[in-house]
Amino acid sequence: MGNTFGKLFSVTTFGESHGEGVGAVIDGCPAGLPVDESFIQRELDRRRPGQSSITTQRKESDRVRIFSGVFEGKTTGAPLALFIPNEDARSKDYSHLAETYRPSHADYTYEKKYGLRDYRGGGRSSARETAARVAAGAIAKMLLQTAGIQVHAYVSRVGDIEAPLYTQLDLSKTETNIVRCPDPVVAEKMMALIDQVRHDRDTIGGVVTGVIRQSPVGLGEPVFDKLHAALGNAMLGINAVKGFEYGSGFAGTRLRGSEHNDAFINEGGAIRTSTNHSGGIQGGISNGEDIYFNVAFKPVATIMQDQDSVDREGNATVVSGKGRHDPCVVPRAVPIVEAMAALVMADFLLRDKSSRV
Amino acid sequence: MGNTFGKLFSVTTFGESHGEGVGAVIDGCPAGLPVDESFIQRELDRRRPGQSSITTQRKESDRVRIFSGVFEGKTTGAPLALFIPNEDARSKDYSHLAETYRPSHADYTYEKKYGLRDYRGGGRSSARETAARVAAGAIAKMLLQTAGIQVHAYVSRVGDIEAPLYTQLDLSKTETNIVRCPDPVVAEKMMALIDQVRHDRDTIGGVVTGVIRQSPVGLGEPVFDKLHAALGNAMLGINAVKGFEYGSGFAGTRLRGSEHNDAFINEGGAIRTSTNHSGGIQGGISNGEDIYFNVAFKPVATIMQDQDSVDREGNATVVSGKGRHDPCVVPRAVPIVEAMAALVMADFLLRDKSSRV
Amino acid sequence: MGNTFGKLFSVTTFGESHGEGVGAVIDGCPAGLPVDESFIQRELDRRRPGQSSITTQRKESDRVRIFSGVFEGKTTGAPLALFIPNEDARSKDYSHLAETYRPSHADYTYEKKYGLRDYRGGGRSSARETAARVAAGAIAKMLLQTAGIQVHAYVSRVGDIEAPLYTQLDLSKTETNIVRCPDPVVAEKMMALIDQVRHDRDTIGGVVTGVIRQSPVGLGEPVFDKLHAALGNAMLGINAVKGFEYGSGFAGTRLRGSEHNDAFINEGGAIRTSTNHSGGIQGGISNGEDIYFNVAFKPVATIMQDQDSVDREGNATVVSGKGRHDPCVVPRAVPIVEAMAALVMADFLLRDKSSRV
Amino acid sequence: MGNTFGKLFSVTTFGESHGEGVGAVIDGCPAGLPVDESFIQRELDRRRPGQSSITTQRKESDRVRIFSGVFEGKTTGAPLALFIPNEDARSKDYSHLAETYRPSHADYTYEKKYGLRDYRGGGRSSARETAARVAAGAIAKMLLQTAGIQVHAYVSRVGDIEAPLYTQLDLSKTETNIVRCPDPVVAEKMMALIDQVRHDRDTIGGVVTGVIRQSPVGLGEPVFDKLHAALGNAMLGINAVKGFEYGSGFAGTRLRGSEHNDAFINEGGAIRTSTNHSGGIQGGISNGEDIYFNVAFKPVATIMQDQDSVDREGNATVVSGKGRHDPCVVPRAVPIVEAMAALVMADFLLRDKSSRV
Repeated sequence: MGNTFGKLFSVTTFGESHGEGVGAVIDGCPAGLPVDESFIQRELDRRRPGQSSITTQRKESDRVRIFSGVFEGKTTGAPLALFIPNEDARSKDYSHLAETYRPSHADYTYEKKYGLRDYRGGGRSSARETAARVAAGAIAKMLLQTAGIQVHAYVSRVGDIEAPLYTQLDLSKTETNIVRCPDPVVAEKMMALIDQVRHDRDTIGGVVTGVIRQSPVGLGEPVFDKLHAALGNAMLGINAVKGFEYGSGFAGTRLRGSEHNDAFINEGGAIRTSTNHSGGIQGGISNGEDIYFNVAFKPVATIMQDQDSVDREGNATVVSGKGRHDPCVVPRAVPIVEAMAALVMADFLLRDKSSRV
Repeated sequence: MGNTFGKLFSVTTFGESHGEGVGAVIDGCPAGLPVDESFIQRELDRRRPGQSSITTQRKESDRVRIFSGVFEGKTTGAPLALFIPNEDARSKDYSHLAETYRPSHADYTYEKKYGLRDYRGGGRSSARETAARVAAGAIAKMLLQTAGIQVHAYVSRVGDIEAPLYTQLDLSKTETNIVRCPDPVVAEKMMALIDQVRHDRDTIGGVVTGVIRQSPVGLGEPVFDKLHAALGNAMLGINAVKGFEYGSGFAGTRLRGSEHNDAFINEGGAIRTSTNHSGGIQGGISNGEDIYFNVAFKPVATIMQDQDSVDREGNATVVSGKGRHDPCVVPRAVPIVEAMAALVMADFLLRDKSSRV
Repeated sequence: MGNTFGKLFSVTTFGESHGEGVGAVIDGCPAGLPVDESFIQRELDRRRPGQSSITTQRKESDRVRIFSGVFEGKTTGAPLALFIPNEDARSKDYSHLAETYRPSHADYTYEKKYGLRDYRGGGRSSARETAARVAAGAIAKMLLQTAGIQVHAYVSRVGDIEAPLYTQLDLSKTETNIVRCPDPVVAEKMMALIDQVRHDRDTIGGVVTGVIRQSPVGLGEPVFDKLHAALGNAMLGINAVKGFEYGSGFAGTRLRGSEHNDAFINEGGAIRTSTNHSGGIQGGISNGEDIYFNVAFKPVATIMQDQDSVDREGNATVVSGKGRHDPCVVPRAVPIVEAMAALVMADFLLRDKSSRV
Repeated sequence: MGNTFGKLFSVTTFGESHGEGVGAVIDGCPAGLPVDESFIQRELDRRRPGQSSITTQRKESDRVRIFSGVFEGKTTGAPLALFIPNEDARSKDYSHLAETYRPSHADYTYEKKYGLRDYRGGGRSSARETAARVAAGAIAKMLLQTAGIQVHAYVSRVGDIEAPLYTQLDLSKTETNIVRCPDPVVAEKMMALIDQVRHDRDTIGGVVTGVIRQSPVGLGEPVFDKLHAALGNAMLGINAVKGFEYGSGFAGTRLRGSEHNDAFINEGGAIRTSTNHSGGIQGGISNGEDIYFNVAFKPVATIMQDQDSVDREGNATVVSGKGRHDPCVVPRAVPIVEAMAALVMADFLLRDKSSRV
């Protein structure tokens, strides 16, 4: 019962890696929103496996179908159901895993919690489910566009290869390389590292940075649904994520208050802050500055090496590395981070409508 | 409308810094739980200001009253209402702030969101609200006790002064010093740093580490309500928190999959993992190992120095440092981190009851 | 966990008949709403026992305290906590009931569900809890006033004594008699019947009719949260309610479609309906006509007569009638029906804000 | 945002009369439940149009597809997505209604609320959406079966033709005639009335009675989510429903307490009640007796006669009766009433799991 996200712009996803497909139902999207199906498809294409040499070669066209909620090109106020059929679901690839728990996967915990598990490709725990989030996030992005809000994400670190701060980058260049780092020099180094890791039959983690621009002042619902808490919740719900920080983040904890505080200034009649350690959020509410945050992704658990494990009876066994997998999931995570950020912002945009009489 | 936390063990807090008091209503606590009022009070005393030389000198006895939900010493299944009257609410201290926005506080964003604000001591955005969470968390801890689950937290870093990993600490010693670091040598250094910071009329940030032991396997509700996502959400909702990581966290992103994966082993008949980079959670579900996480706290925004700011009309002004405030909030945050962790675990303990037929 | 009502204008009540008091926390009330405390008190006074010869003589002043959420006379966007201390809680009156299940009360079911029960005056199942609803409903009414929406209720039937249709009544006269029926002749008959019933040491049921005027078109959230479904849910949650119907109700099921349909007409430029069998709601959404509905109240279960029952061990026993109770609860239910209707309307007023882009 | 039903056994429906299809996503169904697809199909067949001479002749095979959540014949704990494609969606039939508001339909209110409407066959407001509820309800019934709970419904009145009380009927005979009344003599009269009504090109309303047997004691969540309040909410959310009563209902309001109270008795060691005016629910919680309730259905709004109305500009116009429609919807409502009742009971069965420590 944890498959619904959002209070007013509310998304429920369904589907498994090797079932009929994955999908999302959006309840609460305001009526009258023009829906550009080709935009949804482009977003899905960004997440799709097999896009480049650094991603898994699973073949999925990921064609989205809209089952409901749109009439004559606009949302009607009825729920939108989006469905993406599975095509490349080779169940036989996974039968050998029915009896074995893959290290650092969800096999063991799913089986213990639910008493059984769909072992085909991870079933519900597979990252394939995120296709549904990206499709729903595309609708959220269209809604945010009506309010001028822009959601960006990019790869800011792979292993130890790190890009400069977002303020020094041109975020429009994120899609110009397959690693999705807007700095072309750093991107080259990242790609070289990923190639090396694949050659080593291994995987590597990294960081995706999200940046939300032109947010109106006032989004966020203290005390429990602070804007950054909702963003953190959203990001930590993405497969393989191990951490979240916003604004000055963990580094800011080393500063003194006199260094960290953001002074208010009057900039041409507008109240702004001279620095932005707050990451665009104060007291859990957006203050109009850029919202930015980092999302930590662990190295993918599936590696092309033999690993020690146990089977369902607790007997020692070996999980052998085979199949098709990303050496680094971080570039493909970029549209997922954007989608989840967009879902959060859409929800808070609607929630803020009743803040005042 | 963001003042309720938890789906089944559901807590709604209310109250402001300088109103009548703060409180919490818990709906969903199972009936028949013995309630030890003195335990609630002890937990509140741990959070209370004025406990030691390194905390603010605000005088509050923080006496909790239970208005409902307990009969003959046990919960009845009816909502528990807990109330902590404010005593030391000197409203006049704050009237000078009615027209000014304090840097890195919630003054500006609250006023813009709600059109008005209770400027007395931060109103609803004050950390005083967390007293209600600690009281509710004490009930949650009693519930967790029935399942054997233990929730710990301690100060693991102040500025750059850092304690060893939790596995090398005796967590029963956390309360033996005022900085709440179980390592006495590190604690001394932390206290010295905090003294220096206070002397400099400044503040400093740090990290609280949470450790949850003896969790049953199976808690967590994928895909959106993964256990670590809920913990992250809970922690990020605490005042001054800027980041959350669990298990290997941000550092783990630098590792390779072959280093990071936790091999399953059979330990005397029990399925365990040989390492615990997963932080006790796999696929969003507890696996029975220790759950551990770090929570980043920024330096307190209120400093005893003059700071540039603007007033409500955007005119430049100076916020002068005065009053009573913690140079470092991190030690007092320890019971709050524990409380929020306990609320999460209590909620998931109940939610798991319908995982299987 | 069923103690919260409303999605955006969200009310959580707490408290028992003989505990410290009863109260409500409202989360989601928009900021900037002027709060007239004396109005809340007047509403509570309407519900209060001991108002007249036809109601129970329990002595409660029912003084409401506002603990939070209001600053300088206006809501701040923070939760409003309202508390009404119990005064006349004579616990000893009820000790004889600890071992016995009163017929048609909640004693047996509470004890079986929760494993124990607060037997003092019904505990949580007591109608005293509705004082909290009336207080919260008063806030909702103030919010509705800003949108021009008027909520009325009155006693339309006691036993077989029935008032004419609401369209033939002057609803401003409801409070002119103690039975709260706007038709003075019918009211006299109702009062005579209630006097007779009390004399017989018995109780009698009846019907309260609710009328909501000046609702904007568009309130209601199909398909599950239709406006009338939410009103029905609200009314059926009031103690002693056995039925709900709106518009033509049960009688309408006997009509043919050609008789029942409400023709649309153009009335001076406004689209109206010539009849209103729809009760102001079509497809679950308000259409701008009067919303009206009937709420069925069973006779109060506590009667001044001996009744057969069993004790906790299943032994036959007799419940003797004593104490202080209403022979007819229906007049006192009028402000409760209004309060619940106001809570529904306030919630839907806020929810409708995100119906369109 | 009103398209989700249930807190733990949570169903979200989607789809319109003339879109791609209708469907439901169930989140929260416990894992390990055997799923009999043919049972889902049989339930859908009961609701399907064109079954008999007294229902609409729309041709739909209503074949359900399960997209997710079932593996090797059992639920996995992942969401179940059920989809029923539309087949007989002749959009051209409805184009003439784009500019006109049909009397007592949702055309006007949907358009005013959402700013636009899918006018094809009522769009989202069409009763076709209830197919999704029936499919989801079939899953709920399978879950209830594991607890022994039985859900029945039948037609108890058409116009003025009324069946005896349910206690005098053999509910296993409901499906033996097309009007779904277990009393064969009354059923004949009902069918004759419906034939007459169709001959008159008119429609007629009626009542469906629901009966839930073998409910465990303890289901229901006071104070707002009382079992009967949830049932009422569920029933009032069905198209064309105008009223709900349970147990003694509206008739009970005419009784005195001494007549209405249900005496507790010891029946062979079990605590029972000698009568059941309470309808199996006391204080909002099931007491183990039969739960029974009546649901009032208005006459179908679509009649084969010309009716006065207005168009979108408010000009007088005539809506002409044509197409295919049920003269009496009540028989087809039987499986829908059962489905909604099953959804309520499944949700409360799960919610009750955390009632006690």
